[in-house]
Amino acid sequence: MATDIMTRDDVTALVIAAKKRKKLSWEGIAEEVGMSPIWTHMVATGMGAAPKEKAEILGRLLDLPEAAVAELQECPSKDWNRDIPTDPCIYRLYEIAGVFGPSFKAMVHEKFGDGIMSAIDFDMSVSRVEDPKGDRVKVEMTGKFLAYKAW
Amino acid sequence: MATDIMTRDDVTALVIAAKKRKKLSWEGIAEEVGMSPIWTHMVATGMGAAPKEKAEILGRLLDLPEAAVAELQECPSKDWNRDIPTDPCIYRLYEIAGVFGPSFKAMVHEKFGDGIMSAIDFDMSVSRVEDPKGDRVKVEMTGKFLAYKAW
Amino acid sequence: MATDIMTRDDVTALVIAAKKRKKLSWEGIAEEVGMSPIWTHMVATGMGAAPKEKAEILGRLLDLPEAAVAELQECPSKDWNRDIPTDPCIYRLYEIAGVFGPSFKAMVHEKFGDGIMSAIDFDMSVSRVEDPKGDRVKVEMTGKFLAYKAW
Amino acid sequence: MATDIMTRDDVTALVIAAKKRKKLSWEGIAEEVGMSPIWTHMVATGMGAAPKEKAEILGRLLDLPEAAVAELQECPSKDWNRDIPTDPCIYRLYEIAGVFGPSFKAMVHEKFGDGIMSAIDFDMSVSRVEDPKGDRVKVEMTGKFLAYKAW
Amino acid sequence: MATDIMTRDDVTALVIAAKKRKKLSWEGIAEEVGMSPIWTHMVATGMGAAPKEKAEILGRLLDLPEAAVAELQECPSKDWNRDIPTDPCIYRLYEIAGVFGPSFKAMVHEKFGDGIMSAIDFDMSVSRVEDPKGDRVKVEMTGKFLAYKAW
Amino acid sequence: MATDIMTRDDVTALVIAAKKRKKLSWEGIAEEVGMSPIWTHMVATGMGAAPKEKAEILGRLLDLPEAAVAELQECPSKDWNRDIPTDPCIYRLYEIAGVFGPSFKAMVHEKFGDGIMSAIDFDMSVSRVEDPKGDRVKVEMTGKFLAYKAW
Amino acid sequence: MATDIMTRDDVTALVIAAKKRKKLSWEGIAEEVGMSPIWTHMVATGMGAAPKEKAEILGRLLDLPEAAVAELQECPSKDWNRDIPTDPCIYRLYEIAGVFGPSFKAMVHEKFGDGIMSAIDFDMSVSRVEDPKGDRVKVEMTGKFLAYKAW
Amino acid sequence: MATDIMTRDDVTALVIAAKKRKKLSWEGIAEEVGMSPIWTHMVATGMGAAPKEKAEILGRLLDLPEAAVAELQECPSKDWNRDIPTDPCIYRLYEIAGVFGPSFKAMVHEKFGDGIMSAIDFDMSVSRVEDPKGDRVKVEMTGKFLAYKAW
Amino acid sequence: MATDIMTRDDVTALVIAAKKRKKLSWEGIAEEVGMSPIWTHMVATGMGAAPKEKAEILGRLLDLPEAAVAELQECPSKDWNRDIPTDPCIYRLYEIAGVFGPSFKAMVHEKFGDGIMSAIDFDMSVSRVEDPKGDRVKVEMTGKFLAYKAW
Amino acid sequence: MATDIMTRDDVTALVIAAKKRKKLSWEGIAEEVGMSPIWTHMVATGMGAAPKEKAEILGRLLDLPEAAVAELQECPSKDWNRDIPTDPCIYRLYEIAGVFGPSFKAMVHEKFGDGIMSAIDFDMSVSRVEDPKGDRVKVEMTGKFLAYKAW
Repeated sequence: MATDIMTRDDVTALVIAAKKRKKLSWEGIAEEVGMSPIWTHMVATGMGAAPKEKAEILGRLLDLPEAAVAELQECPSKDWNRDIPTDPCIYRLYEIAGVFGPSFKAMVHEKFGDGIMSAIDFDMSVSRVEDPKGDRVKVEMTGKFLAYKAW
Repeated sequence: MATDIMTRDDVTALVIAAKKRKKLSWEGIAEEVGMSPIWTHMVATGMGAAPKEKAEILGRLLDLPEAAVAELQECPSKDWNRDIPTDPCIYRLYEIAGVFGPSFKAMVHEKFGDGIMSAIDFDMSVSRVEDPKGDRVKVEMTGKFLAYKAW
Repeated sequence: MATDIMTRDDVTALVIAAKKRKKLSWEGIAEEVGMSPIWTHMVATGMGAAPKEKAEILGRLLDLPEAAVAELQECPSKDWNRDIPTDPCIYRLYEIAGVFGPSFKAMVHEKFGDGIMSAIDFDMSVSRVEDPKGDRVKVEMTGKFLAYKAW
Repeated sequence: MATDIMTRDDVTALVIAAKKRKKLSWEGIAEEVGMSPIWTHMVATGMGAAPKEKAEILGRLLDLPEAAVAELQECPSKDWNRDIPTDPCIYRLYEIAGVFGPSFKAMVHEKFGDGIMSAIDFDMSVSRVEDPKGDRVKVEMTGKFLAYKAW
Repeated sequence: MATDIMTRDDVTALVIAAKKRKKLSWEGIAEEVGMSPIWTHMVATGMGAAPKEKAEILGRLLDLPEAAVAELQECPSKDWNRDIPTDPCIYRLYEIAGVFGPSFKAMVHEKFGDGIMSAIDFDMSVSRVEDPKGDRVKVEMTGKFLAYKAW
Repeated sequence: MATDIMTRDDVTALVIAAKKRKKLSWEGIAEEVGMSPIWTHMVATGMGAAPKEKAEILGRLLDLPEAAVAELQECPSKDWNRDIPTDPCIYRLYEIAGVFGPSFKAMVHEKFGDGIMSAIDFDMSVSRVEDPKGDRVKVEMTGKFLAYKAW
Repeated sequence: MATDIMTRDDVTALVIAAKKRKKLSWEGIAEEVGMSPIWTHMVATGMGAAPKEKAEILGRLLDLPEAAVAELQECPSKDWNRDIPTDPCIYRLYEIAGVFGPSFKAMVHEKFGDGIMSAIDFDMSVSRVEDPKGDRVKVEMTGKFLAYKAW
Repeated sequence: MATDIMTRDDVTALVIAAKKRKKLSWEGIAEEVGMSPIWTHMVATGMGAAPKEKAEILGRLLDLPEAAVAELQECPSKDWNRDIPTDPCIYRLYEIAGVFGPSFKAMVHEKFGDGIMSAIDFDMSVSRVEDPKGDRVKVEMTGKFLAYKAW
Repeated sequence: MATDIMTRDDVTALVIAAKKRKKLSWEGIAEEVGMSPIWTHMVATGMGAAPKEKAEILGRLLDLPEAAVAELQECPSKDWNRDIPTDPCIYRLYEIAGVFGPSFKAMVHEKFGDGIMSAIDFDMSVSRVEDPKGDRVKVEMTGKFLAYKAW
Repeated sequence: MATDIMTRDDVTALVIAAKKRKKLSWEGIAEEVGMSPIWTHMVATGMGAAPKEKAEILGRLLDLPEAAVAELQECPSKDWNRDIPTDPCIYRLYEIAGVFGPSFKAMVHEKFGDGIMSAIDFDMSVSRVEDPKGDRVKVEMTGKFLAYKAW
């Protein structure tokens, strides 16, 4: 059945095609948008809503149709695979969460008490650190601490 | 059937009991051991092997029997739950890996090419960052980049 | 292997046994503790950490040993069954989340934008509403809205 | 194979497209329909059957074809994902059911005896509560208590 | 850790042991209790709460200790295996639900509209029907129809 | 790739479309076919093979093409979802099998010995029973008892 | 809690211990019992009920206590692992069912029509066939054909 | 994207369509091919590679295009559903493997030692056995015994 | 929605079609590319990124369009089935990992200490070894040892 | 219930305890037994049956009781976790099977035709290869090729 809906997956496909055609990098796109590369990639590939102004920059930069620019501003369904992914690059993040997660939890409770690090009021960056024994990937994250309410 | 084996779970139980009895913190234990708090917690609770010297410090600090000190030096089976855990504090790490994992992968490939961030040649820290809008949990990780071999 | 650890499950068993022996209700216990019945039940059965003062009231009321009172103040591992439970009374909560969850999400985004209702900075109550066609269970919840950070 | 069937998913797609095109809100649609926003969203997106009169209002408001108006009156298969969803906004409802579900069950049995809160003879609302420490999402539900029959 | 709690599983084990020792049948026990065999078996093996009077008859009949008689009156957690069981006798019930379930749903909606057959306000019996081609098992169930509320 | 095969799902879609277009009920169709409503619905929607004569009545009644009438006579793959379905109307059948299944098994063995109720040599009906406290759904099933062979 | 119940698993453990101690083979036990080896093994290890006479022979042969002989006559819960087992010897049976199952189904329907081979009114044998290219395992099964009832 | 590949599923669909159109039986096809019905069905529906000569007979008999005849000679990916299928006719094979598998394993080890019955060097037949109490399905299999290597 | 994206799956389909059409073997393709057959197959079917020069050789050899040659140089998402595959040829690799994996781990730790064999800095070959008792498949792998970092 | 059975897990625990107490290595044990280290570890930890002579050497070397020596000669149930293990050292073997498995299958079929590498008539070794860029783990396996039978 033909409809006039452009889904978020359609937008993501348009974004990736334009990025290849124009030989852009995510860092370059992020600089144009004026946001960090992780946030920019996440929003451009369907895991977050862009403010109007940022959606319009993406639209101009990537020649997106108006419907795609509108769709970028919708709150998407942030579905991710609840089975642990097998792509080796992403899997290692889960192995880290599995092996080091209990130690992370112990540190959070020792420093803050009962509560969590927010995954919503949250930011993250990835950078390259030179090292004579082999360069390293550096990941930095901060998330607001949220204490359990008692009532 | 009675045996003379002390399992790693037995050692972990002894460690946690001694830490409570002696009112120690993980940061304090780590300082005595001369290693980081995350590494110290991980090894003391069964996710890694301790060098002989570090195992002996843990043994003295926590009054562990000789068999426990020996067990701490064995390479454990680092089993973690392949179902995503439900404890809210640990779950958020998986939600981050789910929501931001594809963006992490895009950054790694853009900066390094086809390969991964090692979860073995890897380190991690957790700290508290003061913030007037609510203090934040900060997580820093570095892992060696490993490129896929071509042959 | 004998240890001096009292686990959280041991504390829960002691709490339930004392409640039966003393013929107390959760509402009655909550009133003594000075907190709501849901919070009191949750903490007393191992899903949250009690402030020292509240743990001590629970200890006096239920004749708990000192180790149990200490354990009530620890941040527990809040593990719940990631398979949807089959007990019909609890299952209905999941059926509600399944059938009405997308409508809930649409309302949250329409009223607040991209973000979530916190399950940490959160409270909840259950009450009985008389109704000539059959009394009703009333559930009220409030949770802080958390907006996704952009950076 | 071409058939003259319009599925419920087709109707949902038409509804969402029309809502965007006409820049309507769910609250606005609900007001026109004369029902609550949650019920209206649920029925319009395929989780319930609409009475003839309500289906026709939806049809006029959203320019739906006659087949769609007829389909809205059919009893749909209310399938929801029995794996816990990963979208963070919906996931928090399940985390609440997991962490607080046993306390909910204890309250229901303490106030009513052996039985359940119906998820069928049930209503629900979502509203925004202003709060100087950050506005809160408020959820209210009532469901008829059903006692287990003994025979 | 020793406690004074008798769990529901303990009660079930006592019930089955007494039934064997006294060479009773479920039909005979049900007759003494004055209820149907299905209800009696279900309650005596932990899937429902017994009224005080019925619990006491079961106690006298099966020589149960006082704590067991009290436990029979508690609202149990009616946990059943959400994986389809493999015991061939029980599996066939699920195969029937799988093969004939959609036909059952079509009949309910055709006769009643949008709603369900209650599994709470529900009764069931099993009997033997003589048949020259081989005797048949007959199952009869009735459950109250519950219509979806519109609000 | 175009082929001359009409699958069973194609036939089911044709059946449902014709039923709507001609405003028939399952009871009405069954009466024409001269079989029970449950059997008729099951066969017409792909869970069983129809004898030639019954397939031809269905074909005439619903204007099915010859290929569909032929396909109705094939033995279908009776696949059903081995995950328990979430549609509330069908789910309740599984909840009944879960909560009351062990009691059903106990009755079968008490009345017949080791064996099962057949789900193949089996029949079932659904009817409406008036009741001043709310009408009830009545389900009746009989299945041949099959004893385990000993050899 | 101490009870006077001997479970079926206890009986199986007794059977296997006695078989080793007395250096018996399953073929030898079956000959004493006067039944086939497969049936004898199945019943003696908890997958079926033995007639009184056969249970008593097993009891005498294996020095089982009276409670075990009684338990052998009960209808057991024939639970098997619904996850496909990994033991290579048993796994191959499932691989055969997976690879050749659809061909088996096609043959059954071609020779009998819509129905199944009973797994209840069923027998099976395993034997060794000499072959110069390597001896072969031979498995023979027969099960009663059951036709789907139409009503 | 259009390609010149004919997949194995395309071939299977062509085979089944031709078999219906020409009103052939699997026994008849197998006779023409000069192989057993089970092997013929398995290879013709994508679970094995056919030798050139047999593929060509199938091609002539069923009017298959050249690309299909070539595809029949490829080694297919023999994927089968690792979840136990629910079609009742095939399910019974798994129930047999579940209930009788441990007895099968005991017989293999008693007669041959540590090893398995091959599912590769394997053959199987299905036949109809007349029986006054109801005809029976007979299944015969032989597989080469493979002993575990010690080195 | 039409886009100008050629996915990796499209490239794989083109590769396999060309290989059949040109009657090439993987060994022959690998020789042209100047790399090992395993690496060549892996990259050509979407499990790795090819250096520009190798992608261009593949393009010329298999008449791939320019977009496919570009796609071969992208870092793919190396997704593999986290459920153990059922194809018998591949399944045996998993059975080996299951049965012999713990012995592999013991050897690695005995020879190297706590760490792993890399699956990234890794190579592998498959060859045929003649043997009078039946030819054998030989698999050789080497992977860099990675020691757990302590910090 | 006390029995005279020593399970295979009991034997494994005895073996590991004796190895630690006597400070033996698997290579040293294997040399005494006169077999390879992988085979020796596998049999000594419960994944295979030992010939009488080898079991007796193990018994003398590790001071095992007579019942353990007898148990080592039984054919064990070689159960392994059908969920992919999370221990990083073992997981990498599965990642290799996932990423390189299809390439392995292509090589086997190109060199041998339709069939598999046996995991039963199979051997394996692990060794350390010095390398200036970091030492490597080398794994070698051979398994008999088994061709699919046609009949």
